[in-house]
Amino acid sequence: MELFLLSNGKLSGEAELLGYAKRQLLAMIERRNITSAVFVPYAMIRGDYDQRAGELSQTLGIKVTSIHHAESPAEAIAQAECILVSGGNTWMLNQMLHENGLIVPIQRAVREREVPYVGWSAGCNVATPSIRTTNDMPVRNSVVLPALGLFPVQINPHYIDAHISGHMGETRDERLAEFCAVNPSESVVALREGSLLHVCGNDLRYFSAREQGFKVFRHGAETREYQDTSALRSLVPFTCH
Amino acid sequence: MELFLLSNGKLSGEAELLGYAKRQLLAMIERRNITSAVFVPYAMIRGDYDQRAGELSQTLGIKVTSIHHAESPAEAIAQAECILVSGGNTWMLNQMLHENGLIVPIQRAVREREVPYVGWSAGCNVATPSIRTTNDMPVRNSVVLPALGLFPVQINPHYIDAHISGHMGETRDERLAEFCAVNPSESVVALREGSLLHVCGNDLRYFSAREQGFKVFRHGAETREYQDTSALRSLVPFTCH
Repeated sequence: MELFLLSNGKLSGEAELLGYAKRQLLAMIERRNITSAVFVPYAMIRGDYDQRAGELSQTLGIKVTSIHHAESPAEAIAQAECILVSGGNTWMLNQMLHENGLIVPIQRAVREREVPYVGWSAGCNVATPSIRTTNDMPVRNSVVLPALGLFPVQINPHYIDAHISGHMGETRDERLAEFCAVNPSESVVALREGSLLHVCGNDLRYFSAREQGFKVFRHGAETREYQDTSALRSLVPFTCH
Repeated sequence: MELFLLSNGKLSGEAELLGYAKRQLLAMIERRNITSAVFVPYAMIRGDYDQRAGELSQTLGIKVTSIHHAESPAEAIAQAECILVSGGNTWMLNQMLHENGLIVPIQRAVREREVPYVGWSAGCNVATPSIRTTNDMPVRNSVVLPALGLFPVQINPHYIDAHISGHMGETRDERLAEFCAVNPSESVVALREGSLLHVCGNDLRYFSAREQGFKVFRHGAETREYQDTSALRSLVPFTCH
């Protein structure tokens, strides 16, 4: 299994989508001789699917086709060499994955055929057991919480501990503490902008373009910052580096 | 029907809960000869229910009892002179209102017995048709989206148009634009900190402790800022002032 779970798509001040993870993604593409990818754009509510696919094609140097063109989305996944899942609205993305019957096809492609999965922001959220740690607004009239479960721990992307002066809504830390209070047996990995988790076979590695750590939230435990994945050893079935 | 729909509980730099709306709330209490209120604390995940009830009692000068002490929560609502609904996590609050069978009792109390409803933050969200415009994290494993529908238009509390530098997640404006794109026949009233909507009989009024306007988001329409409720005339069955 190979997963790239990215906190976000673009870094502030960077023009290129996935630019901060380009080195690792190109290495994976070369190592696996990948020439094309299927793009899952459903999280994008107000953007152009094909334009985004074109951007990805340019960054990665491979053919990228948006799955909305496929007659059978499930068949497109079954044939895919690589799966790219865009950020946007997590609720919309998860609902569309379920409505289009793509949950099991993606799980099988990733687990059985070892097709690499690259997801950023909402695309990272849906790779975890559920979308309960999304930051997005639940814009849909019906919702599904369970997601792909490719990675066994909840992730909170776009993690930030800064605070807007005068804003009295909950901070991100308060929201995550609430999640842990309601779900005391679960943990949440909080990924800052420009960081990613990379599962490759049995190995789990962490990378941050800004050399910042990630945090782990757990009920009743102090929240700390980590620079490598050894802190996740008891939570995941991977070798942590 | 009398509703106080407050964006938030405490203003930055203010110690007193509901302090910024105290003048209007005390006037309502005096006008209606109210001596007690039932407090619905379910949104609070990590706070003390009774302590919060005590704070409210001090601010409002009436007896305030948290509904978690009631043998029959529905009966407590049926006997209530006034209903106070706390902020916190909107998902938790809405789920508990449904699970405790309080949706219809609160609707009947407010609509038929004219019991005043005071809700802030999450307590404001659940007064609208659904909780689809909450800012909160969906911490529960099951969710219900439909809410009390006392006010006929979606409200986004804690509205803010500032942005944390370097954060690449969606801004609030982007989130609300996504909601409107997915729900093109609906509108969202965005209430800044320290502001409220007051429904009293057939009248709808707006108040901001900081003399700021509110915004209305609607698909395909320019988002503008308003100082009085005349902008809501076509959206609500009230006389707008």
